[in-house]
Amino acid sequence: MTGFFITFEGVEGVGKTTQAQKAFDLLDGKHPGKVIMTREPGGTSSGEAIRNIMLEAGNNGIDGMTEMLLVFAARRLHIRDVIEPSLKAGKIVLCDRFTDATFAYQGGGRGVDEKLIAQLQDMVQNTLRPDLTLLFDAPVETGLARIGERSKPDRLEAETISFFQRVRRSYLDLSQRYPERIRVIDAARGADEIADEIRTILRENGLC
Amino acid sequence: MTGFFITFEGVEGVGKTTQAQKAFDLLDGKHPGKVIMTREPGGTSSGEAIRNIMLEAGNNGIDGMTEMLLVFAARRLHIRDVIEPSLKAGKIVLCDRFTDATFAYQGGGRGVDEKLIAQLQDMVQNTLRPDLTLLFDAPVETGLARIGERSKPDRLEAETISFFQRVRRSYLDLSQRYPERIRVIDAARGADEIADEIRTILRENGLC
Repeated sequence: MTGFFITFEGVEGVGKTTQAQKAFDLLDGKHPGKVIMTREPGGTSSGEAIRNIMLEAGNNGIDGMTEMLLVFAARRLHIRDVIEPSLKAGKIVLCDRFTDATFAYQGGGRGVDEKLIAQLQDMVQNTLRPDLTLLFDAPVETGLARIGERSKPDRLEAETISFFQRVRRSYLDLSQRYPERIRVIDAARGADEIADEIRTILRENGLC
Repeated sequence: MTGFFITFEGVEGVGKTTQAQKAFDLLDGKHPGKVIMTREPGGTSSGEAIRNIMLEAGNNGIDGMTEMLLVFAARRLHIRDVIEPSLKAGKIVLCDRFTDATFAYQGGGRGVDEKLIAQLQDMVQNTLRPDLTLLFDAPVETGLARIGERSKPDRLEAETISFFQRVRRSYLDLSQRYPERIRVIDAARGADEIADEIRTILRENGLC
């Protein structure tokens, strides 16, 4: 096996983190010690420090382009220190958010020019792209309602409905542009049904 | 008056921060309340947090490209929140290091492709460039000897002599490429002589 890179994408409250954990448990059962779970932004100690700068409610003033630069700085470390060594060692890497989130949040959500994001993607990632992306999609109101039940929203979650609608739209646009890589998961269904579909997709990819 | 943007550049230990402070005192005497002194990386609270990530000795593992992305993220905030509003208000802005330092340190020193730095410069700064840059130049050994007397070197200062020689070379290359903007100051001389030369340059630029 030569490593396999799976990303989990979607707006807040669609259940992607829960499903990523379920997928981890399933895959780790089949390939013990050969699966890692990580997330963005973050994934390294410096990356977590960068994540904190972005999420602190006090930093309301950070604009989309600054966010994009911080995200790619953290991503650079994450790729070099975690993702690439794991893939080279033949592991399955599950990552909660990756560059599609930058196109969706900083691009679609905050209006950063998509061409600039693509430039940074090439600069920082060279040819690295996910082998498979699971995009959790649900009406924005559904996701936001779930967040409301869960915890005090951080800065990103405190943005408006229309922001999340733009983010959702960008994600769906990406899925149409890269239909081979991005599988759209209807996240308005129950958790077990979603887990079943993900198991099927992982099986189609020869992973379980 | 429509604002004037002056940057102070050079490797560690060449006395640029001291001379920037002297220039500030001189200009502020002529234009009270119309001069600001700032620095990079840093200059805003988020920028200072980013600066700390870069300088912490524990983060030895940050590579040149990550450094560059963090520097430009901090610079973006610094321009938007400090430099541009001050220039628009007609102020003289003195900045201890700016983008020439990125070309010299991350480019010349750490080997990041200069074309990538130029791309980010355009992305983050649009057309903003310093009106005048004072480049403090001295043999690397002179500067490092002065630092040794001053304080425990941080991570950047702990790099090797050859690193600083590459940085110095990049700075001098920039001064040849932009002779109208960049004035090279022989920093091996005494502080009073240097201050006199800077006063002359400021006078030539109609600032005092």
